[in-house]
Amino acid sequence: MSASGAADAAGAAPHGTTGARSPAARVAIVDDARGEFVDAARSAGAEVGPLSAATRGLIWTASEGEDDLEALLAEYQGISWVQLPWAGVDAFAGLLERHRGDGRVWTSAKGAYARPVAEHALALVLAVLRELPRRARTDRWEADERGRTLFGGRVVILGAGGITVELLRLLEPFGVHATVVRRADAALPGAARTVTEDRLLEVLTDADVVVVAAALTPTTRGMFGAAAFAALPPGAVLVNVARGAIVDTGALVAALGSGRLAGAALDVTDPEPLPPRHPLWTAPNCLVTPHVADTEAMTVPLFARRIAVNTAAFLGSGDFVGRIDLDAGY
Amino acid sequence: MSASGAADAAGAAPHGTTGARSPAARVAIVDDARGEFVDAARSAGAEVGPLSAATRGLIWTASEGEDDLEALLAEYQGISWVQLPWAGVDAFAGLLERHRGDGRVWTSAKGAYARPVAEHALALVLAVLRELPRRARTDRWEADERGRTLFGGRVVILGAGGITVELLRLLEPFGVHATVVRRADAALPGAARTVTEDRLLEVLTDADVVVVAAALTPTTRGMFGAAAFAALPPGAVLVNVARGAIVDTGALVAALGSGRLAGAALDVTDPEPLPPRHPLWTAPNCLVTPHVADTEAMTVPLFARRIAVNTAAFLGSGDFVGRIDLDAGY
Repeated sequence: MSASGAADAAGAAPHGTTGARSPAARVAIVDDARGEFVDAARSAGAEVGPLSAATRGLIWTASEGEDDLEALLAEYQGISWVQLPWAGVDAFAGLLERHRGDGRVWTSAKGAYARPVAEHALALVLAVLRELPRRARTDRWEADERGRTLFGGRVVILGAGGITVELLRLLEPFGVHATVVRRADAALPGAARTVTEDRLLEVLTDADVVVVAAALTPTTRGMFGAAAFAALPPGAVLVNVARGAIVDTGALVAALGSGRLAGAALDVTDPEPLPPRHPLWTAPNCLVTPHVADTEAMTVPLFARRIAVNTAAFLGSGDFVGRIDLDAGY
Repeated sequence: MSASGAADAAGAAPHGTTGARSPAARVAIVDDARGEFVDAARSAGAEVGPLSAATRGLIWTASEGEDDLEALLAEYQGISWVQLPWAGVDAFAGLLERHRGDGRVWTSAKGAYARPVAEHALALVLAVLRELPRRARTDRWEADERGRTLFGGRVVILGAGGITVELLRLLEPFGVHATVVRRADAALPGAARTVTEDRLLEVLTDADVVVVAAALTPTTRGMFGAAAFAALPPGAVLVNVARGAIVDTGALVAALGSGRLAGAALDVTDPEPLPPRHPLWTAPNCLVTPHVADTEAMTVPLFARRIAVNTAAFLGSGDFVGRIDLDAGY
């Protein structure tokens, strides 16, 4: 999706139909009104057109631009539902904070991209356990015996959202012992146990693999710091497919450098983009992928499906998926 | 396991017990009589001792040395069961050929290491689809959109042994369309279809992923050559966890070089070890791992289990696992 936050309206509806139906059915898509998205909203019964006083639903496709979105909401006061494009909404945190109790329905793509992101998480877990970063960087047949199996391993997953649900499904054939660390300790299918965040250090002590799949919130920011790395047993590996700032980068670099952490694979970093010559590029058994767990080719059809479901909810059923809890911030 | 083919006997049984039981119970372990293997044979009821005229069962732990094994069988004529250490027995092909109809039971570790090898195959499939070799070799944040998902992909698997059975189980959550190419066209759980080897080129035409998991036999040697690469659609990737010589290395290098093949990951090569400066070390999106799909740490407990099962079969039940078909050669 375009990263532009320009508030240009994009409407593909024939002008003749504009205003012919209930104003509540009027949806604008800003700023990437590509065919798949327009078709999805129309298939759910909406009239898709340019931003106007008649606009009631707004599908915001840019990954950032909260000031532009704020200005647009001030200009078009009729908007009562806003659909954001990503699972994580931290790029809109200030806006969402200011709009607590504004009466609008806010929805994200929470869960929509869980499959490709969970797949990427599994790819990274297997890559670091099998030491593929080291294998990829050599040009000699090193007949050592390095590499470990995931079968029967102890996996700790931070967060209990869509990615975690899907990752547990992918992990099932490996017979792992999975612990989910979440806000509440409600059970999750496929997890041997779920614990609250205050028990993080305790459950890390016998982890083979840690996967960060939580939303970035004031609580999770920096949650995985020096104390967490110190709690891990030697030989553990870390994978982050959520947000870079949940992990303390300095503590991560130190844990890799000391050999205490046996490997890491990161689709997200802090800072992001990771600058050239950053030690994470060359740390032993460390792999960085540039926030590509869900590529555009993967997300466009999935976001179109989310648009269709939530447009239908907006026009009648009320069964929104991925509704943002403005108090929790995700 | 030791690669030595020395025919030294290794017996840990107290001398006082030698010969105290039926001669049929006498098993020798050559040449790595490590505790796990001795314990496994004993747990099944065997007397484990040095090679002698009383030896009836032989557990051969070396990965090669068919001449040594031949000499040993000539010297100790009472041996009526031979357990070999690996799933593939091509290193013993000449010996097995000469012993067709010798009346002995020959067993391999066929299927015993299927789990770690299938896991490595999945790791390699995800790595090439996600272009992890390229990611591992850069030190810059390349915000492109490369990388593909396995979800719903079309996977062709050569071979229908234990690795394939286990790989199909690991692939199940991805909802792939799996085609198994095998000698007979008997169905396999988890595979959308199975076809015989003569239909290989036909089923390659819409494959996203090809995994080589077949035994190396005169039929499969070089089976994946220039015609197979030409049959693949652009964008396909190849993974080999079986034996290097099933794939024509020159044709593979050409397919990667032309961009026709989008990536490859190989745990086995031809020649093996792959020499320094071989083009496969640096081909685009190509990853070589040095025959480590099943490391010693993974295989020792699994081989111990196979020893226990087959020792029990030898001593009574007759239910051998991994019995070698000397006519088929695996």
